[in-house]
Amino acid sequence: MTEKLALASDNLSPAHPLILEAVCEANQGCALPYGGDSWTLQAEEVIQTTFGKKCKVFFVPAGTAANVLALKFACKSHESILCSDIAHIDCQEAGATEAIVGAKLLRVPSKSGKIYPEEILAKLERERGFGRHGTSPRLLSITQPTEVGTVYTIKELKDLAALAKQENLFLHMDASRIYNALVHLDITFTELIELIPIDVLSLGGTKNGLLFGEAVLIFNPSLEEGSHFIHKQTLQLLSKMRYLSAQYIALFRDDLWWQLAYEANQKACEIANIIRKIPGLSLTAPVETNQIFFSAPSEWIPLIQEKIYCYLWNKKNNEIRFIASWNTSDRDIKTLENILTDLSQNLTQQIRV
Amino acid sequence: MTEKLALASDNLSPAHPLILEAVCEANQGCALPYGGDSWTLQAEEVIQTTFGKKCKVFFVPAGTAANVLALKFACKSHESILCSDIAHIDCQEAGATEAIVGAKLLRVPSKSGKIYPEEILAKLERERGFGRHGTSPRLLSITQPTEVGTVYTIKELKDLAALAKQENLFLHMDASRIYNALVHLDITFTELIELIPIDVLSLGGTKNGLLFGEAVLIFNPSLEEGSHFIHKQTLQLLSKMRYLSAQYIALFRDDLWWQLAYEANQKACEIANIIRKIPGLSLTAPVETNQIFFSAPSEWIPLIQEKIYCYLWNKKNNEIRFIASWNTSDRDIKTLENILTDLSQNLTQQIRV
Amino acid sequence: MTEKLALASDNLSPAHPLILEAVCEANQGCALPYGGDSWTLQAEEVIQTTFGKKCKVFFVPAGTAANVLALKFACKSHESILCSDIAHIDCQEAGATEAIVGAKLLRVPSKSGKIYPEEILAKLERERGFGRHGTSPRLLSITQPTEVGTVYTIKELKDLAALAKQENLFLHMDASRIYNALVHLDITFTELIELIPIDVLSLGGTKNGLLFGEAVLIFNPSLEEGSHFIHKQTLQLLSKMRYLSAQYIALFRDDLWWQLAYEANQKACEIANIIRKIPGLSLTAPVETNQIFFSAPSEWIPLIQEKIYCYLWNKKNNEIRFIASWNTSDRDIKTLENILTDLSQNLTQQIRV
Amino acid sequence: MTEKLALASDNLSPAHPLILEAVCEANQGCALPYGGDSWTLQAEEVIQTTFGKKCKVFFVPAGTAANVLALKFACKSHESILCSDIAHIDCQEAGATEAIVGAKLLRVPSKSGKIYPEEILAKLERERGFGRHGTSPRLLSITQPTEVGTVYTIKELKDLAALAKQENLFLHMDASRIYNALVHLDITFTELIELIPIDVLSLGGTKNGLLFGEAVLIFNPSLEEGSHFIHKQTLQLLSKMRYLSAQYIALFRDDLWWQLAYEANQKACEIANIIRKIPGLSLTAPVETNQIFFSAPSEWIPLIQEKIYCYLWNKKNNEIRFIASWNTSDRDIKTLENILTDLSQNLTQQIRV
Repeated sequence: MTEKLALASDNLSPAHPLILEAVCEANQGCALPYGGDSWTLQAEEVIQTTFGKKCKVFFVPAGTAANVLALKFACKSHESILCSDIAHIDCQEAGATEAIVGAKLLRVPSKSGKIYPEEILAKLERERGFGRHGTSPRLLSITQPTEVGTVYTIKELKDLAALAKQENLFLHMDASRIYNALVHLDITFTELIELIPIDVLSLGGTKNGLLFGEAVLIFNPSLEEGSHFIHKQTLQLLSKMRYLSAQYIALFRDDLWWQLAYEANQKACEIANIIRKIPGLSLTAPVETNQIFFSAPSEWIPLIQEKIYCYLWNKKNNEIRFIASWNTSDRDIKTLENILTDLSQNLTQQIRV
Repeated sequence: MTEKLALASDNLSPAHPLILEAVCEANQGCALPYGGDSWTLQAEEVIQTTFGKKCKVFFVPAGTAANVLALKFACKSHESILCSDIAHIDCQEAGATEAIVGAKLLRVPSKSGKIYPEEILAKLERERGFGRHGTSPRLLSITQPTEVGTVYTIKELKDLAALAKQENLFLHMDASRIYNALVHLDITFTELIELIPIDVLSLGGTKNGLLFGEAVLIFNPSLEEGSHFIHKQTLQLLSKMRYLSAQYIALFRDDLWWQLAYEANQKACEIANIIRKIPGLSLTAPVETNQIFFSAPSEWIPLIQEKIYCYLWNKKNNEIRFIASWNTSDRDIKTLENILTDLSQNLTQQIRV
Repeated sequence: MTEKLALASDNLSPAHPLILEAVCEANQGCALPYGGDSWTLQAEEVIQTTFGKKCKVFFVPAGTAANVLALKFACKSHESILCSDIAHIDCQEAGATEAIVGAKLLRVPSKSGKIYPEEILAKLERERGFGRHGTSPRLLSITQPTEVGTVYTIKELKDLAALAKQENLFLHMDASRIYNALVHLDITFTELIELIPIDVLSLGGTKNGLLFGEAVLIFNPSLEEGSHFIHKQTLQLLSKMRYLSAQYIALFRDDLWWQLAYEANQKACEIANIIRKIPGLSLTAPVETNQIFFSAPSEWIPLIQEKIYCYLWNKKNNEIRFIASWNTSDRDIKTLENILTDLSQNLTQQIRV
Repeated sequence: MTEKLALASDNLSPAHPLILEAVCEANQGCALPYGGDSWTLQAEEVIQTTFGKKCKVFFVPAGTAANVLALKFACKSHESILCSDIAHIDCQEAGATEAIVGAKLLRVPSKSGKIYPEEILAKLERERGFGRHGTSPRLLSITQPTEVGTVYTIKELKDLAALAKQENLFLHMDASRIYNALVHLDITFTELIELIPIDVLSLGGTKNGLLFGEAVLIFNPSLEEGSHFIHKQTLQLLSKMRYLSAQYIALFRDDLWWQLAYEANQKACEIANIIRKIPGLSLTAPVETNQIFFSAPSEWIPLIQEKIYCYLWNKKNNEIRFIASWNTSDRDIKTLENILTDLSQNLTQQIRV
């Protein structure tokens, strides 16, 4: 437990009490291993009901695993994956896609975290121009919300999906914080999946209140072949799966997921409002989910980092990232306001002196 | 929760209440992610104290991951790994070593689950005879207790370690049920590691009462280079690590691990005694830990499987595997005795009739 | 150039003059790279005509590459490959299948180099019994002639092919010395391929008189997808392909391949006759192609190796391998006879004294 | 053999007669396989003498193989490789580095094909900022001459080498056309290697007059461990190695390499002069070796491609690449001049009309 204000990431937050309760309740007697237990079967059903669509569900302990598993379901080593130039799969997964899938990542320039058809097409044309000396583009991976917390509109998603179809690419969604995006769009999972023909989706969990656990959902049946072997081979098959899957049952019961994401988005909104009021600070990306990006005068950076766990996103422009969580409290917001206001006043006074 | 008697594996059992309690207690406020939290730091210390030796500790969610990670720390793709011909890393890990380490496994014929210097040397000589057309043997992996529940004696382990040193092989121990072996040998972790120079060890957890979680311990510092990248790249780095590591603190507090393994071994002993008394059944391996292997008349097999979750180890000789767990109860033992006695009597009657 | 009698392998022999001539003739002016040249197109046609069947042809520089490429066309990392326990792909390819395909090799016990349905089925049943904890058997690889020079009969091949079909396995033939086998069976490539439904075949070249060069032939169109990318990615696409492909045109012109293999087989036959006559030596495998395996008294081994380049196949039973080549001369045979006779007499005299 | 003027690449050209002669001379009697022959031993010596430095030499059939082998000698899967954003290893090797080394490529923005310390440092800082969530930068790969035919000056190379040392990166040189660069710099291999501490170098061959064949030179002994296994495992070990290695003996005899590269550079110079004179055409990169990049009016492109084998480097700015070769003749130059002049006049007339 840390006393310092924690806004570095939503994975610093604890599990929600209802989630933990579900884990405790799963601790009853013996159960079949490797997902043969009743909790896992129920969780798979709950997820299919939530998405309103048949899909194959694989639970995995960590987020990077969810992405790599999804990509390995869809791609061979001579194929390539289009993603944004700040995508988690490219920047923050320790080269796992290259090492475990063996495939090349093709980086598409992003604007406010999003990629658009024109730049994707340009990248495709270049790669295909290399013929067999290049790779065979096979999958388009999009992150919703993006790495900077922005949310693709339904229109933007539809355009990307249409492009993927036209170019014969599978569509993957890195949905590790999808809950926050759905709250912003005010749509359900069923609506999302009805509108956007996603082939495979990495569904977050840990960042929205689980102790641990993510899931991979295969919507395109052609990707299912061999998938249960790959689940095991990529080191993701837990023997006592119930402690993971039971959390998902709780997450989707009574729309707990919505409540938690809503709370986090709301707090981000309040944080953004504070930042807007502080002279010298300025938001660097629209605040649409639970992430806040802003720049500060360079001399503020060490002072902010001393008082708040946060991530220095970009040294060059002194850009800091805050992430609110389901458990960010009103008191946290007040503390933050005090810290920033004090900083602002002290620094202003120093300048005057 | 299942009503049927569960003797298929110790991973059907639930988590021990004290372990679950530790998880609940870790659910306090925010904590640094990726193992930067205080629980993880404490768990690493506890493990080093338990082993009486400095080592680098990596926590991972599942057992196959612990093995593959250990092998990847030590081997490159042109190197090979000697293991028994029934080793988990060869038979039951979905080809993960080949796929993720890229290295070849060299199978050494086993007797009662154990491998011996003579057969290892023969395998080494054959492989080295191929020169660069073969692979470069680099690691000897032993499983303690073995896949059939037998326990290498200290003398046997010393011989294997001496051989590894002489042949310039790293020594890996797949120690997913090491607790049960130590109870059998009546030695501590410190004693084990003082006697046997293990380079890297996959330490079990799930099978001895955890919800989930295993660990990899690097004792040979030359294997540490890049290990934290590999931990992440092989998809094993949990963001909220505390819920895993806190379990290890509880497991090693007041020697809970010993109590749980002792209980399981004891129950296996009682099960073995029952089997010995039933005409027609006969043990096929010495019962030294919590595993019981026995053969039954072929017509019994479906009847046993109907009443008891168990694993048909070998169809050819009608060999069944039972595994007792920390939570196998006196009532379970009584139930088992009744089932087997009834079966024996009914089948004898049928024959008479 | 070596003066010592060379019977270690057919890859010690030079290229046949007609093959070299073809290379020299290809050295005319500019030509499109990467197989777009007229020699390569013609060689592809020649091979299809020779086999009497449409297939996709990939030329590669080395034999190991031909095998690995064939396996990578057919298998993913979670799949497994059945082969004999002395198969080149398992023993003498430096772990390339594990490293580059990522797949597991399942070794089937062999008799005189051959594997049979019963042992294959046993291996299949064991592996499938592991479920997703094991691998998914996907391909049966057979070597014709075998590693010990024996030749599968058409009946044996048909049985293996039927088994492969029944078990949903692709059928691969490691045909690095297929020429010698066809001479023995007295059938053509067209007859072979009409009788046996091979999915993918590694066609030798170097060992039958080429300077360098092998080919992979895909007969099953479902394996073609992405194959030209894989050809390049596995480092096998030569830019000036004509110097490789032109050799195949010469090899198949006027049945040169038959003449060369016939010559090698014939010489092996003569060598076998010499060995049969020398007291103390005894053949350890039927001599059906150009390979001769025999055992000798242990004190002979260093003396033989001093005078003849040969391969000590098995130290345990003092088994030596000779391989005759298209350029093994009558003089070589006479020299060999003298060496062995002298050895025999000297050693006999020593014993008398 | 093609009648059309061939300026697409130097790999369309045939082998030089002296190289072919060396191959023919190597075709004498039996020789030890896998590089144990006298030609290969001599070629290794010749290369070491040429470079004036002890190094381990591996011959490989193709250029992509030379690069991937060099990278695999130096990097593990969790490490990363810095290269230019138009590097052959990234763009034109079918993802082989990702698939076979498993490592990530980090693209550094290039100017006229070259990369500079500032941009490399920025990329390093970004990647290292990700900590273990990123990769561990391990190698700097530079291409000399660059992909657009420009040549790093000695000063530029020294700066890059100093940076590599300071940042603990191995230095790799993709030297597939190094001959042309040395002619431009007017220095020898010995001078190059004395000035620049290269750890591992991919030495071209095919593009400078060989039939086939490249080499990897390890100058840093710490990269040698296991290298002969890796050579075999990556499918590069030819059995009849002499036909490859003998070519290198000829290439370095009487500085044939210099003569061939000089001739190619000279012809490129003449081509550049022609292009400079034609209204409408304009060079887009300095012509320092045997490559010529220029742009043309868009309506010229199909007309040029109809008459000349060439590579449309960049569709967006109608940029074409010509590459001269050792066998580009005076007649070819005259033909080219006629084609371009005719085109220019016809198109000008059309405009007039």
